[in-house]
Amino acid sequence: MTEFRRDPIVGQWTLVHTSNPLGPKDFQKEERFVRAPDLCQFCPGKERMTPSEVDSVRLNGSLPNAFGWQVRVVPNKFPALKIEGNLDARHSGLLELSNGIGAHEVLIETPDHHKHLADLSVEEVGHVIKKYHSRLVDLAGDKRFKYIIIFKNFGESAGATVEHAHSQIIALPMVPKYVLEELEGAQQYFNECKCCVFCDMIEQEYKDKERIVTENEDFLVFTPFVPRYPFECWIIPKKHTSEFATISESSQHHLAAILKETLLRLKICLSNPSYNYYLHIAPVNYEKQESFHWHIEIVPKLTNVTGFEWGTGFFVVKTPPHVAAKHLREVSLS
Amino acid sequence: MTEFRRDPIVGQWTLVHTSNPLGPKDFQKEERFVRAPDLCQFCPGKERMTPSEVDSVRLNGSLPNAFGWQVRVVPNKFPALKIEGNLDARHSGLLELSNGIGAHEVLIETPDHHKHLADLSVEEVGHVIKKYHSRLVDLAGDKRFKYIIIFKNFGESAGATVEHAHSQIIALPMVPKYVLEELEGAQQYFNECKCCVFCDMIEQEYKDKERIVTENEDFLVFTPFVPRYPFECWIIPKKHTSEFATISESSQHHLAAILKETLLRLKICLSNPSYNYYLHIAPVNYEKQESFHWHIEIVPKLTNVTGFEWGTGFFVVKTPPHVAAKHLREVSLS
Repeated sequence: MTEFRRDPIVGQWTLVHTSNPLGPKDFQKEERFVRAPDLCQFCPGKERMTPSEVDSVRLNGSLPNAFGWQVRVVPNKFPALKIEGNLDARHSGLLELSNGIGAHEVLIETPDHHKHLADLSVEEVGHVIKKYHSRLVDLAGDKRFKYIIIFKNFGESAGATVEHAHSQIIALPMVPKYVLEELEGAQQYFNECKCCVFCDMIEQEYKDKERIVTENEDFLVFTPFVPRYPFECWIIPKKHTSEFATISESSQHHLAAILKETLLRLKICLSNPSYNYYLHIAPVNYEKQESFHWHIEIVPKLTNVTGFEWGTGFFVVKTPPHVAAKHLREVSLS
Repeated sequence: MTEFRRDPIVGQWTLVHTSNPLGPKDFQKEERFVRAPDLCQFCPGKERMTPSEVDSVRLNGSLPNAFGWQVRVVPNKFPALKIEGNLDARHSGLLELSNGIGAHEVLIETPDHHKHLADLSVEEVGHVIKKYHSRLVDLAGDKRFKYIIIFKNFGESAGATVEHAHSQIIALPMVPKYVLEELEGAQQYFNECKCCVFCDMIEQEYKDKERIVTENEDFLVFTPFVPRYPFECWIIPKKHTSEFATISESSQHHLAAILKETLLRLKICLSNPSYNYYLHIAPVNYEKQESFHWHIEIVPKLTNVTGFEWGTGFFVVKTPPHVAAKHLREVSLS
C-alpha cells in the first residue's frame, strides 16, 4: 500500500509506502575509510595550509592561524564563488548569466580529526552554532548578498570530499529557488489562514504525536509527514521566528543540545550514515519575511535518486515518517 | 572562475565552473557487478516469474508469456502504485493525502541479459521506442491518469535494482511538480515572446554550435547551457511538437538511432557510467499544452548531491556544457 502525500508548504508530492516499511537494517551500510590525519589540512598544526582564518573560537588567548582553536572558519581554498568583483549580469541571446560572486567559507568543527559532530560535547557543538550565527551576521553586512546558506555534508555519498568534521557557508547574490518556494508557500498560507504554516505543522505534530523524535525547551524534532527521504528530520524552533540572526544565547545552547542528540540518534539507529543538513533561514538584505519560520532539515543519504524522481520531482519513501520517528526515539543514548 | 546561469524555462540557477573544467577521467569510475543470469527473472524462460505481460514485440508469432520476444512489458511485481481502487483524496488536519493509485510497468528491453540499451541495434532500440509509444497511448485511455512518465535507471548508483536492461513506465493521477514548472515556464515564455522557448533554445544551439553533440533528420542532441549535472544531454525533436503520442514511425526510427548513438557516446566517453533518462512529454487527459515541446533528458550519475544543492535547488557543475559536448563529439564510434 502506498499513499500520495502533498507537502502543505511547497506542494511537493511524495509517494509513501505505508505497508512493509523499510527499517534501519534494510538500507545498505556505507563503508568509511579513515584517511591518514597527517595529510589533513584541517588538523591543528596545519593552520598555514588553509587561507587565513576569518573567525574562530579560541581558548587561552591563542593567536589567529596558530594552535589553540576549538572552531576555525576559513575561506574555502577552492571556492565555488569569488568574493571580489561584480556580478555583471548579462544576456547571451536567450541565456542569462552573471559572474560567480559570493563567499564560500569552511567551518572546521573540532581540532580532533577522529571526532564527528555527533561525538562532540554540547558545549563544543555550541561553539559551532555560535560561529554559524556570527558568520551569518557578518556576511549579511555585505549588501550584495541576498542569501546565506549554512550546510554540512557528512560522508562521501553525501558529497563530502574532506573527512575532518566541517560545515560550509555560502553567501549568494540571489535567493535560491527552493527557499523562494518555501517563502512563497508560507506567505500564501498566511494570506489564506492568517497564521504560520510551520506553527500549524508544529501544532499538528503535537496532536498526532507519532512523528515526534525529541524536544527540549526551545526546539522540536520531528519526521515530516511529507518527507523526501527516509528518516528525514526537521529541527524547528517552537516559537515563531523567521530569522536565525536573532537567536538568543540560551537558544543557541538548546539548539546545540538537540542537534547533537538528533545526529547521535541517526548515527546509532542507521549505523553512521552519510547525511546532509542545511539551515533554511530568511534571506538577508531582502524584504522582511515575517510569515517564514526558520528550521534545519537533516537528510540521511540512504537511497539513490532514480529517473522517476529526477524526471518528476516526486519522491518515493519506503519508511513512513512515523515508523522512522519510532526507530529514532527507541535509540538508547545512555 | 565560475558563472551563475539561469535556466530560461523554470528559472533554475546553476553555478558552472568555467575554468579548470573536469574531464571524463576526473570522475570516479563505478564498478559493475554482473550477477548470475540464472537468478534473473527478466531472462527468457522465466516469463512466468513476472506478472502476465501487457504488451510485447514478438517474432515468429510466439505466444504471450513464452519464449520468442524481443521486448516485453509487464506490470511491476513490486509496484509503487496500484491500478485498482480510487484516489479517495482527503485531509488530515493540515495534511493532504490520497491512495497510491496508478500504473507501474517494466519494459524489458532485450532478451539478452548481458546487453545494455547502448549495445542493441538501431532496430532493437526501435522496438523499445515503439513500446514506449504504444504504452503511452494505451495508458492515456484511462481517464484517471494525468501524466505518464517513461524513464530508465541504469546502474546501481542511478537507482537500478535489477541488472537486466529495462525501462519503467509510471502513470500518475496528477501532473508532477517538475513537469508543471516546465509547462508554466513554456507558457509564460510563449505569452511574452509568441514563440516556443524550446524552439528558441534549438535556434540558439545552432547559432552557438559548441554545445551540439550530434543530430539526424528529426532530432538534435545538445548539452544544455544551464545543466544540472556534468555531461547532461537533451534529445529534442527539431520540429515543434508537444505530444510524443503523435510521433510518426519514421521519427521513431530516427529517435532510436540517436538515442542509441548518444548512450554509446556517453558509455565510451565516461567508462560506462550509471545514468538516468526520462521523457518530458505533455500531460494526458489535461488541457492542451501547445507551447510545450517534448524532449528526453539524460543525466549520467557522476557526482553526489550535496547539502548546498538539497538546501537551495542550486546545482554546481564542474564541466561546462561546451566542454562536455566536445568530449562526446570526439568519441570514435567506428
